[in-house]
Amino acid sequence: MKLNKSLLVGAGLALLPTFALAQDAAPTFDEIGPYLMTTLLFLVGGFLVFWMAAGFAMLEAGLVRSKNVTTQLTKNIALFSIASIMYWLVGFNLMYPGDGWIVSGWVGGFFNITSLEPVGLEAADAALDYASVASDFFFQLMFCATTASIVSGTLAERIKLWPFLIFVVVLTGFIYPIEASWQWGGGWLSEMGFSDFAGSTLVHAAGGFAALAGALILGPRIGKYKDGRTIPMPGSNLTLATLGTFILWLGWFGFNGGSQLAAGTVGDITDVGRIFANTNMAAAAGSVVALGLTQIMYKKVDLTMVLNGALAGLVSITAGPLDPSLFGALWIGGIGGLIVVLVVPMLDKLKIDDVVGAIPVHLVAGFWGTMAVPFYTDGTSFVTQFIGFAAIGIFVFVVSAVVWVLLKSTMGIRVSQEAEINGLDVSELGMEAYPEFSKG
Amino acid sequence: MKLNKSLLVGAGLALLPTFALAQDAAPTFDEIGPYLMTTLLFLVGGFLVFWMAAGFAMLEAGLVRSKNVTTQLTKNIALFSIASIMYWLVGFNLMYPGDGWIVSGWVGGFFNITSLEPVGLEAADAALDYASVASDFFFQLMFCATTASIVSGTLAERIKLWPFLIFVVVLTGFIYPIEASWQWGGGWLSEMGFSDFAGSTLVHAAGGFAALAGALILGPRIGKYKDGRTIPMPGSNLTLATLGTFILWLGWFGFNGGSQLAAGTVGDITDVGRIFANTNMAAAAGSVVALGLTQIMYKKVDLTMVLNGALAGLVSITAGPLDPSLFGALWIGGIGGLIVVLVVPMLDKLKIDDVVGAIPVHLVAGFWGTMAVPFYTDGTSFVTQFIGFAAIGIFVFVVSAVVWVLLKSTMGIRVSQEAEINGLDVSELGMEAYPEFSKG
Amino acid sequence: MKLNKSLLVGAGLALLPTFALAQDAAPTFDEIGPYLMTTLLFLVGGFLVFWMAAGFAMLEAGLVRSKNVTTQLTKNIALFSIASIMYWLVGFNLMYPGDGWIVSGWVGGFFNITSLEPVGLEAADAALDYASVASDFFFQLMFCATTASIVSGTLAERIKLWPFLIFVVVLTGFIYPIEASWQWGGGWLSEMGFSDFAGSTLVHAAGGFAALAGALILGPRIGKYKDGRTIPMPGSNLTLATLGTFILWLGWFGFNGGSQLAAGTVGDITDVGRIFANTNMAAAAGSVVALGLTQIMYKKVDLTMVLNGALAGLVSITAGPLDPSLFGALWIGGIGGLIVVLVVPMLDKLKIDDVVGAIPVHLVAGFWGTMAVPFYTDGTSFVTQFIGFAAIGIFVFVVSAVVWVLLKSTMGIRVSQEAEINGLDVSELGMEAYPEFSKG
Repeated sequence: MKLNKSLLVGAGLALLPTFALAQDAAPTFDEIGPYLMTTLLFLVGGFLVFWMAAGFAMLEAGLVRSKNVTTQLTKNIALFSIASIMYWLVGFNLMYPGDGWIVSGWVGGFFNITSLEPVGLEAADAALDYASVASDFFFQLMFCATTASIVSGTLAERIKLWPFLIFVVVLTGFIYPIEASWQWGGGWLSEMGFSDFAGSTLVHAAGGFAALAGALILGPRIGKYKDGRTIPMPGSNLTLATLGTFILWLGWFGFNGGSQLAAGTVGDITDVGRIFANTNMAAAAGSVVALGLTQIMYKKVDLTMVLNGALAGLVSITAGPLDPSLFGALWIGGIGGLIVVLVVPMLDKLKIDDVVGAIPVHLVAGFWGTMAVPFYTDGTSFVTQFIGFAAIGIFVFVVSAVVWVLLKSTMGIRVSQEAEINGLDVSELGMEAYPEFSKG
Repeated sequence: MKLNKSLLVGAGLALLPTFALAQDAAPTFDEIGPYLMTTLLFLVGGFLVFWMAAGFAMLEAGLVRSKNVTTQLTKNIALFSIASIMYWLVGFNLMYPGDGWIVSGWVGGFFNITSLEPVGLEAADAALDYASVASDFFFQLMFCATTASIVSGTLAERIKLWPFLIFVVVLTGFIYPIEASWQWGGGWLSEMGFSDFAGSTLVHAAGGFAALAGALILGPRIGKYKDGRTIPMPGSNLTLATLGTFILWLGWFGFNGGSQLAAGTVGDITDVGRIFANTNMAAAAGSVVALGLTQIMYKKVDLTMVLNGALAGLVSITAGPLDPSLFGALWIGGIGGLIVVLVVPMLDKLKIDDVVGAIPVHLVAGFWGTMAVPFYTDGTSFVTQFIGFAAIGIFVFVVSAVVWVLLKSTMGIRVSQEAEINGLDVSELGMEAYPEFSKG
Repeated sequence: MKLNKSLLVGAGLALLPTFALAQDAAPTFDEIGPYLMTTLLFLVGGFLVFWMAAGFAMLEAGLVRSKNVTTQLTKNIALFSIASIMYWLVGFNLMYPGDGWIVSGWVGGFFNITSLEPVGLEAADAALDYASVASDFFFQLMFCATTASIVSGTLAERIKLWPFLIFVVVLTGFIYPIEASWQWGGGWLSEMGFSDFAGSTLVHAAGGFAALAGALILGPRIGKYKDGRTIPMPGSNLTLATLGTFILWLGWFGFNGGSQLAAGTVGDITDVGRIFANTNMAAAAGSVVALGLTQIMYKKVDLTMVLNGALAGLVSITAGPLDPSLFGALWIGGIGGLIVVLVVPMLDKLKIDDVVGAIPVHLVAGFWGTMAVPFYTDGTSFVTQFIGFAAIGIFVFVVSAVVWVLLKSTMGIRVSQEAEINGLDVSELGMEAYPEFSKG
């Protein structure tokens, strides 16, 4: 537009009316193209991350025993729904203060319901250097829901439905938005130079810390640790667990790629492509390392480790999916796979019962991913990365623990022994997932 | 282009050849950008709605008993395939008369096979204010197929395969295109001021009415209603039902978002974002309401109600996903969830046997969604909305009933009592879905 | 830009600084729009083809017996991961020589690790007439992985895990990239006028030939052919097989649509739409033909044939998804469905044991699709198509056979008789997919 205005002056005033008309009628693609592309990135990235909710549901349904599947499914669809409402009611504006606060006054700092742009927004009223508010809200909401999805797997097979859902209310409405605000809302961590591109710490480790607090307070499943041994409780459906992993892998392209937050320039769209390639490489490396390592350590490949290895590779690259080379993504993701194979039995030794391995995958690989950022990203430091991780970890763990303790001391968080042995589906919901198949 | 031409005149004729060359060589993005973006919207939206066909297949396979799963899967993939062919052969041009009729003469009004633009279309020959015909056809086809998907769930576990598929031929080739034409083809309903953005009535209630006609003529499953009681016949696989619901939820972003029919301006892409956010909110609210309500009413959460609650929320917002605020989407979708919980037992009292709950979800919530439009959309009226709903309902119900009766009186539509008790998979197809798992 | 430069000269030198600034600051959308759109096409197309890896996993897990499901899942996620690494390490640069070779010297022709553009690429340094290298790599990688996915189904239920994975290393690192290079890398087949738009021969038949070589050397499953009869060994989970087919169908829109390799002009995006519509039509036709034909031939519809019919329709249209009319796609895809129904029993007569039907679907329908190209594509000939198919077929078959024989004579490729009878899951991995469901 600057060029045109200059030309206009040079060419004479005779052209003024025509030009003004054209300008009013339709802004040029030079002006609106980036807004269109970035909004599209959020919408496509957002539906891919939405799809991760299905991935978690399938992964967890596949890794619990069949007597607890209906409960696990219910928790997953309910937590996503609750997150959608809480993030609208409180979370989004708590996380990004200053953007779109519509309720002011004494309640202002607390309930700031998200409102969208009017229908048929004019280009003149749009944030042309960014994207539509609705698309941004849609995209960010999915990250909030992901954090809650992580928690449900760890606590499976023994937690009551409603206390879990109340925890989700607090997590998605407050805990996640507050800690994520420290970095993505322009808070103190971002000012300090902490770097977490798509959320190895903010989403994955945070979910892992909330899960860890819950697991410690809830205790292990009955019979899981007996006479110093860990009793295997194999998942009921590895096909669904594999499907869940593929879904998560697919959704992660949106998770990391969309976090570029821009797609309207050559540099930005090229970066999104880099992120896609790196994300895929890290998952592949995590999977291959777990494949080889379980063969070496146990003489047999362990599919659940391979699945979790891929997921740990994904978590590991999430803090910095843009800057590493493909080789960087390979070794960062590969160490993620290594972490899973080593940490899963360690947790069992500590008698921390994590049904689906969410703590190794999301918390520990999230730590690794966060600490790996300085290898490739200029201007980041291991110390700052550690401080950021620790700050978020302590905050989420402590607040979560308080909430879990409150829930435990009021309504109780654990089903009865009898209910646990019979399975939550019959005792809590009265509805089996696979009612016709006789159990062996 | 107008501006440039003016400048050209001002700058002198010396520039003419250069300019003309540039103009011919490549139209500017200002000219073609909206066409590219809207075509892309149809392609992405279209593949998302395609994915809904898989969602219906999984939902229905999960909600029928294992002895009927293969048949249900066969019906789902076959109905989609038949819809693809019939919508090409007749439907598309019947629905949008005037567009692309290639066969004229006496057969003109009947068989108007869809033809696409030539390969390598020139910008000068394109509908630059809209999108490519192929992308539009691809997108619209998916809506036609969705209508048929709705029918298959209701009639499960007792209908013969081939009569059902013949009904699909009529539904996707004629019934749906004709009634949808009244609104989206520029027909009398659109002229009257009826408003149905993405098809609460045109797609969902229409499918529901076709299903209702079939259910009444087909009758309930053997043993479903006995001595005034409703005998529960639980679905065989709730994981698949949940997966199906997540798939449908994902696909619905394309269903509603793509129905903006434009993505190349700031206003349009922002509206698509609004629709995504509202669609998600309505589903979440429907799910949460069903969650809470089944807890209150039955003291136990009912997962199948939660799944259907989410779907009813989606159907409810489909008539007007753009205009409501997020709060509007919340309560409109929430009432959808309420409808499901209340209407499912009502249908059973009327001894209308709807295996998967498609009538409450698609017909009743579709009615609600259609009637809710005037709350947020200017220029619409409750009376007009009711007339539109009733007109389409009566048309689809009556024509469907005629077809069902014709099928019943000629080839029969119901399997034998013995076949129904043994399961359709063994009797109709000779192929079990889960041959190795012994039934409890 | 040519126009602007001319105008500039006409308007006088006074404008020079302003203009130069504007030009440096931000290239216009006319310049970068096509790059953005094509890069986006590769990213969206790429994640859709990625999703096909999940589709193959589900299809194969559903079509093997439950005692071999964990092994089949492990092979599928492992082969995708290995393909991701090998294609980066060798394949991509072997396939597209001259692009991005970073290691030169004596090892140059062998290991040419793929490197991406720098972060935040400037428009001036980008291939503005194409797309980002990373997006291209991401997209092409998925085709390489697909080739390997095809092999795993045929050899299921009797092959050892590790020899299979070593074969995948060779296939994805060398065999596929070399033969694909002959056409897509600008090699001798492309110079000869061979035409294979998205890979009926290069991907599907190639995968089929590698599978055929393996099947012949590996031999049939124990008890499959007995006293001249073929013993049916029904798949354990047809819901998953159907889900896998829907996933593949969805992913194929990316597979064929993305192969347009451009989306930034009216002609290109319109062509992508054409490809989507044709791809869908071919799948629908293959499915309907298999539906009708199995009814006629066996008096009962065979769901697995319908699923494979849809897939064969997709393979058939893949060599030329752009040029045919929708009617062309219908009959080309329909013949694909016919092929499956006829060739599956033929293979059994030859005692070639192809567990999931990958050879009929990918090799034979791939041949048909390749030979059908000249019906609609100018400048192609049946002879050239045949030569291309034969050349790739012979190359892949011979090299694969050599590798299989080498593997057989060194580490062995087949599990013990006892392991095969007990199932690979228990014997090879010690982990059942459905441990709780008793087998009937």
